Amino acid sequence: MSEVRRDIVTDTWVIIDTENERIPKTQKRDIGSSSDCPFCQGHEDRTPNEIFAVRDGSEPNGPGWTLRVVPNINPILKVEGELEKSGVGVYDMVSGVGANEVIVETSEHIVNFFELPEEQIGLVLQTYRRRIEDLHNDKRLRYILVFKNHRPLAGASTIAHTHSDLIALPATPVRVKQKLNGAQEYYSYKERCLFCDIMHQETEMGDRLVFQSAGFVVIAPYASRFPFEILILPKRHAFSYKLITEAEIKDLAMVLKKVFHTMYDVLDDPPYNLILCDSPNLLPKANYWATIKSDYHWHIEITPRLYRTTGFELGTGFYINRIAPEKAAGMLRGSL
Amino acid sequence: MSEVRRDIVTDTWVIIDTENERIPKTQKRDIGSSSDCPFCQGHEDRTPNEIFAVRDGSEPNGPGWTLRVVPNINPILKVEGELEKSGVGVYDMVSGVGANEVIVETSEHIVNFFELPEEQIGLVLQTYRRRIEDLHNDKRLRYILVFKNHRPLAGASTIAHTHSDLIALPATPVRVKQKLNGAQEYYSYKERCLFCDIMHQETEMGDRLVFQSAGFVVIAPYASRFPFEILILPKRHAFSYKLITEAEIKDLAMVLKKVFHTMYDVLDDPPYNLILCDSPNLLPKANYWATIKSDYHWHIEITPRLYRTTGFELGTGFYINRIAPEKAAGMLRGSL
Repeated sequence: MSEVRRDIVTDTWVIIDTENERIPKTQKRDIGSSSDCPFCQGHEDRTPNEIFAVRDGSEPNGPGWTLRVVPNINPILKVEGELEKSGVGVYDMVSGVGANEVIVETSEHIVNFFELPEEQIGLVLQTYRRRIEDLHNDKRLRYILVFKNHRPLAGASTIAHTHSDLIALPATPVRVKQKLNGAQEYYSYKERCLFCDIMHQETEMGDRLVFQSAGFVVIAPYASRFPFEILILPKRHAFSYKLITEAEIKDLAMVLKKVFHTMYDVLDDPPYNLILCDSPNLLPKANYWATIKSDYHWHIEITPRLYRTTGFELGTGFYINRIAPEKAAGMLRGSL
Repeated sequence: MSEVRRDIVTDTWVIIDTENERIPKTQKRDIGSSSDCPFCQGHEDRTPNEIFAVRDGSEPNGPGWTLRVVPNINPILKVEGELEKSGVGVYDMVSGVGANEVIVETSEHIVNFFELPEEQIGLVLQTYRRRIEDLHNDKRLRYILVFKNHRPLAGASTIAHTHSDLIALPATPVRVKQKLNGAQEYYSYKERCLFCDIMHQETEMGDRLVFQSAGFVVIAPYASRFPFEILILPKRHAFSYKLITEAEIKDLAMVLKKVFHTMYDVLDDPPYNLILCDSPNLLPKANYWATIKSDYHWHIEITPRLYRTTGFELGTGFYINRIAPEKAAGMLRGSL
């Protein structure tokens, strides 16, 4: 019989149906060539002017870099303009103020994140922290979302060159609110961090544990929405990614390289999304401030996209997952 | 500048970004052949035994029918078994009790819903009502979701023969709760139905109105999550689809045929989902009962699936839509 599992953080439910288990094959991909790639060294004129770069002393917007941050050439939100709220009859609207940046993770035409050297992945993780810190100074921006779309089936553009996306939003996302609510409710009842408790339970039980490093725990979450979904939790309780230390960045770079390499081997280069689940910049409810430092715990979600969502997911907000997380964790663990 | 629009019913936000507008081409599809199709007349032995059928006096599970309801051959939830709730450490779980049915809409190998005669579409709509009424007798079942997945990009199986899906759930979906909450809050503040107010505003403003019949209003919703998203509202306030009259079914059959035919013409046979947004069977909060008859209003959502969702949608619960609903409504209206 299948199980209907509740995600304790967001109060959504997932049907784990292991009777009809199958893992679809992913298809070969077109990775393009360096000569056509706007993210490769020497093609700086094909992107807007850089916001930040790691350079060897060279001038901005030319060669001589190892990492660049540029505005998205087709931004969905822009920094310029006033944040205006208005009504249209019964409806509400906010002007599209925000930011939409791209973090080009290497100057070479590398298409898989795990193929970067650990130090380079560390540089990417430092850049996440730097961009979040910088954008948090703009109090019009409620939330900074850092994420990766790998392969078009996960919503990536046709540019295969490895990169991350950043979108700064003028409203707090509903999923973030759900997580803050879930964490706050749990803490107010138990006086313990929900994420710390999940981490302790998973390391003790072990059947959903993929592996752990000095600073991080990698698990297949109990109510995984997607087959082979991964949750990475820092062992040290910290409510914001901005608090990550240099030692933790070095460790996390190793963890991510290992996770994505394993996922590539086991699932044959699957489409996936990576989402950095950080605290908001401005909190939507004043009473979140009182407790967020103790009850929220930043983390990373990785969601392979092997299936299409159907009318079921759209109509319910629930998910159907035909691979039990215990099985997924076992397969990933076995290939580490 | 783009607009960040709030969906007043569910309190989710959509970024309407019209500066980077483009409508992707859909590809030709493989519609299979009748000889391989488990849903075609004469192949009744390829499905589980029927739950309901419209027949010419013939015996069940053989030829002589115009519509059949059968259990899904790979059900994600099953009717048998006890509804058991249990805890796994910090987590919660419910046993997978429910139902998963398929409504085969015709005995012929027709792949587009709008190609059915209006009377046949009316038969499908009557069958929705009949199955919901029947399953509501089982008080283990909290919510009955009726939906359609058209083409694999919208999550459909490889069976192209036109059909609808039904899943009966032992928990009330989070999206349904959001809608009940939004409707209840609005009613308690205004003492008017939110959906009736939306309908009045849209028929007056007209820029998002696709068309209206005697009994139904068809609009492109203000905060459309997907390009060319459609909302169909019954003009007569009714909290449950079970209250639909025979005259309304006849009218709705005409409306659906027209909407899907137009969508086929304008978007070249797009993948889509249809979702019947009905009231729950058992209400998750006792105080919903007091007001649901006045504040909820059943409706139908149709969501073309022209783009993949990205890490942005997964991380936020928000959506990005690059076609303004005013433009979508205009294009659909122009091709009616």
